[in-house]
Amino acid sequence: MGSSEKVFRIGLCAPGTRMSQDVSERAHRLAEELYGSRVELHFHRQCFRQAGHFAGEDHERIDALVELANDPGLDAVWFARGGYGACRVAEYAIPRMDGAARAKAWLGYSDAGFMLAGLHKAGFARVAHGPMPVDLVREDGAAAFARGLGWLMENDAGSLEPSLKPGQKAMAFNLTILSQLLGTPLEPDFSGRVLMLEDVGEYMYRIDRYFYHMTSNAAVRKCAGIRLGRCSAVPKNDPDFVLTEEEVARFWCERSGIPYLGRADIGHDSQNKVVPFR
Amino acid sequence: MGSSEKVFRIGLCAPGTRMSQDVSERAHRLAEELYGSRVELHFHRQCFRQAGHFAGEDHERIDALVELANDPGLDAVWFARGGYGACRVAEYAIPRMDGAARAKAWLGYSDAGFMLAGLHKAGFARVAHGPMPVDLVREDGAAAFARGLGWLMENDAGSLEPSLKPGQKAMAFNLTILSQLLGTPLEPDFSGRVLMLEDVGEYMYRIDRYFYHMTSNAAVRKCAGIRLGRCSAVPKNDPDFVLTEEEVARFWCERSGIPYLGRADIGHDSQNKVVPFR
Repeated sequence: MGSSEKVFRIGLCAPGTRMSQDVSERAHRLAEELYGSRVELHFHRQCFRQAGHFAGEDHERIDALVELANDPGLDAVWFARGGYGACRVAEYAIPRMDGAARAKAWLGYSDAGFMLAGLHKAGFARVAHGPMPVDLVREDGAAAFARGLGWLMENDAGSLEPSLKPGQKAMAFNLTILSQLLGTPLEPDFSGRVLMLEDVGEYMYRIDRYFYHMTSNAAVRKCAGIRLGRCSAVPKNDPDFVLTEEEVARFWCERSGIPYLGRADIGHDSQNKVVPFR
Repeated sequence: MGSSEKVFRIGLCAPGTRMSQDVSERAHRLAEELYGSRVELHFHRQCFRQAGHFAGEDHERIDALVELANDPGLDAVWFARGGYGACRVAEYAIPRMDGAARAKAWLGYSDAGFMLAGLHKAGFARVAHGPMPVDLVREDGAAAFARGLGWLMENDAGSLEPSLKPGQKAMAFNLTILSQLLGTPLEPDFSGRVLMLEDVGEYMYRIDRYFYHMTSNAAVRKCAGIRLGRCSAVPKNDPDFVLTEEEVARFWCERSGIPYLGRADIGHDSQNKVVPFR
């Protein structure tokens, strides 16, 4: 207060699954510790709604997305949480967004990848895959939260995935979400981009099958190469799959002719770095 | 013996996961009970191989497929079991198949759907979704086995999915497998076909997401309509998904403009009927 410094205002909504009031309170406290009165978090009430699996009915999630996107008083939209449900709303919300929405920074990952893909495809310039407030439930989740906030507020270079090079276009996705948006109106242009892929809670045989699906796709084959993020909480395969996730990635890259470029520092964890869509 | 009646010879292989010797012995006994010496089952030794998750290495499963397919002494190829792995071999095996392969009847479901799709796309005329020998592990599995064998040997009309009408083209798939072959070289032409879809062991939110993926696909939208088979062993959704699988199917059909035609009598169970690909 008393400072002439601009206040950075962030709108938060949940296009998939609802988040808890407790996490939003921790987010408020941590944001204040980090940036004092220079930041304001505005959790849309929709974040806490519940309609079956979802954080409110489809129309409520669409309306909340559009309301935050088009609010000229907000500088960014931060997806509060993933879960499941963004694919039900993205194609309805994005066409209703205006110039104020395009000027904002957008951040999230996991199920929110449906939104990131659609926003990038619609020409939004500041869309990134990275931490969300729900990461505060993780051990060391505060580091993830601070990293996401640092990218949103200051474009902090230290938040970025370290293999990113100036001029190299890139995108990042949850592997499952990428598979499920291929061939839909949300599919973005992969040409010349490094694709970074992570997953959580999927059996190795499913990771292998997703790699088949993705690397067999002609549009994906136009990418500049694949980097494998972390695959965490992989349930035990019966029988043992033998191949590791990196062996699976190498196998399908070799078979499809897509360059395998090594590991990416992304995943469903507190180390998850930011990957701007370019 | 002593009869001049033709012996019907069936070759069996496992393009995904291995099967047990015990099931093959039960299959031999039941086939003999049903048809005496009029039928011979030839389980390829590859069915019992194991290489990690798979019934032998990829090249072993490819070679077994091609060997049975091109054997002029066999009348049919019956996939012994699904599991996972057909997507790793289909694109290599099918181009090596000859006229003897095209003259055969082919039957299977679940993971074998990758093979059915690829064979149909390659112009094979007698490809069907239906019971496999591994169904003998189910309660009442003998009925499923007999139904599959009846279709292979006698083109038994009583084996067919009851909504099938003369002249109406149709296909059937496991919903997950269909999702994972869209956009790949195995994707068949859905134009004018009724698509029958079943699944097993998938959370409702995943069934919903597969329906998003599939009904958003321009090629799938050319189908004549969707019939929903059984979705069995659905794990408990947390929170409750509220929508049933039929409500999910209706929702996505309405949204995408694909006619919803009702239920199909197929599923991962002993009631699973035969759906020839036409």
